[in-house]
Amino acid sequence: MRDLSRDRRWIAINTATVKAWSLEQAIDGCARAGITAIAPWRDILQACGVARAAQLLRTHDMTVTALCRGGMFPAADEAGRRAALDDNRRAVDEAAGIGAACLVLVVGGLPAGSKDIAGARRQVRDGLAALLPHARKAGVKLAIEPLHPMYAADRACVNTLAQANDLCDELGDGLGVAVDVYHVWWDPALAREIARAGSRIISYHVCDWLVPTTDLLLDRGMMGDGVIDLRGIRAMVEAAGFAGHCDVEIFSARDWWKRDPNEVLGVCLERYRTVV
Amino acid sequence: MRDLSRDRRWIAINTATVKAWSLEQAIDGCARAGITAIAPWRDILQACGVARAAQLLRTHDMTVTALCRGGMFPAADEAGRRAALDDNRRAVDEAAGIGAACLVLVVGGLPAGSKDIAGARRQVRDGLAALLPHARKAGVKLAIEPLHPMYAADRACVNTLAQANDLCDELGDGLGVAVDVYHVWWDPALAREIARAGSRIISYHVCDWLVPTTDLLLDRGMMGDGVIDLRGIRAMVEAAGFAGHCDVEIFSARDWWKRDPNEVLGVCLERYRTVV
Repeated sequence: MRDLSRDRRWIAINTATVKAWSLEQAIDGCARAGITAIAPWRDILQACGVARAAQLLRTHDMTVTALCRGGMFPAADEAGRRAALDDNRRAVDEAAGIGAACLVLVVGGLPAGSKDIAGARRQVRDGLAALLPHARKAGVKLAIEPLHPMYAADRACVNTLAQANDLCDELGDGLGVAVDVYHVWWDPALAREIARAGSRIISYHVCDWLVPTTDLLLDRGMMGDGVIDLRGIRAMVEAAGFAGHCDVEIFSARDWWKRDPNEVLGVCLERYRTVV
Repeated sequence: MRDLSRDRRWIAINTATVKAWSLEQAIDGCARAGITAIAPWRDILQACGVARAAQLLRTHDMTVTALCRGGMFPAADEAGRRAALDDNRRAVDEAAGIGAACLVLVVGGLPAGSKDIAGARRQVRDGLAALLPHARKAGVKLAIEPLHPMYAADRACVNTLAQANDLCDELGDGLGVAVDVYHVWWDPALAREIARAGSRIISYHVCDWLVPTTDLLLDRGMMGDGVIDLRGIRAMVEAAGFAGHCDVEIFSARDWWKRDPNEVLGVCLERYRTVV
């Protein structure tokens, strides 16, 4: 493993971790903490405005590891799929506008009323294929993020790194994968599929799995507070060739979202040095 | 698919579905509803007493599809693993005592303080290997139940049917698998691994995945109320050769556990006929 664990240059903050902040506040807060990379969500980017955000990011010399998020391809009808595709093209443009290294894709789950997960997976493949030409032209990489199987119904029907790798194999250039330890730590095929992904790993997310977990969506843990072998998985992605940032993404309604975001950044930095 | 959907002979009730009842009440309640198969949990079996339970089950001509549950093999030290193995041998004896078709195994997760899921999986394999001679001698099949990945940390580190099939391949006679739709419905490899399991499928469980799901453990849905393609998965297991019962197992603190168990049985029968 590269000796990066004590170097804050390789930590990035996903803005979901400091949910109370606007993008302006997050950029400023990260800069004050000596953090030089950030991954914003679209809602606060849009609230700030893409041009203004781009200027603020440049002013603070802030690397944008990713824009979160595009995806949500499946829909009950053709009009819904077309609307999703249009929105994804706008997301690509926003990612290009702030110089994001990639657009993270949460691909979507079952359309309303559907029990056809194989069909939803085909819709995801078709949506990716339709989006890719625009993303290639814009120079924005698309990062497929496999989500934990507990989100298969309502958020993402790509639930393993093997599926994401298969999609990359099928659809070619411009696609990569986002490896989030929260979603993949349990996977018996993880080591094999990380090695297979290789240079296609373009985004790496850290947090932790708490025991017990009290909410399916909003109870992620701070690195070190759960059961994920963070050093082990980081060694896997680095052995596969990944040399980018560790994006800290913690959805935590009962704990970290209740704290002062400045305090949260301090703990992220300390845990980044000691356990990530 | 066999035309069993309107025949109540192939429904079985897992006693967790009628949690308010003792084993005596569950046997009596099922018999009154015309249900002829049951899968008890060990706590209410022990409260009733194995010999008395066996007699009650015979009196009511009740098939015992499974005893729930053994497993929980991993532990932090050798004494813990030995205690787990001893308890599993007692579970085998209890299963034999009531003529259960199999003992369902929830294999266990990470030992306290551990982040080594590969190590936990090795402990599961070793525990199964150690338990098998006793189970074979007692004539009790062991059914490995892969649990949903959201239980990997605290309940079962066997999280896919592929893993369960691998264990059967490695450890041989006396082992089979329990396919619970709740745990496997999301798996992209499901069709392939059900076909691979073939005659090793010795237990089949139904309920449904609700959207949203509000609790990781106790918010399962009644068949038909969620997004699982129950008919599709049943067709897969029957094509693989499974000709046994559909065990209804619903953990539902916010809904079904609050109702009169007699009402619950009525709904189970109706849904069994119409959607399972």
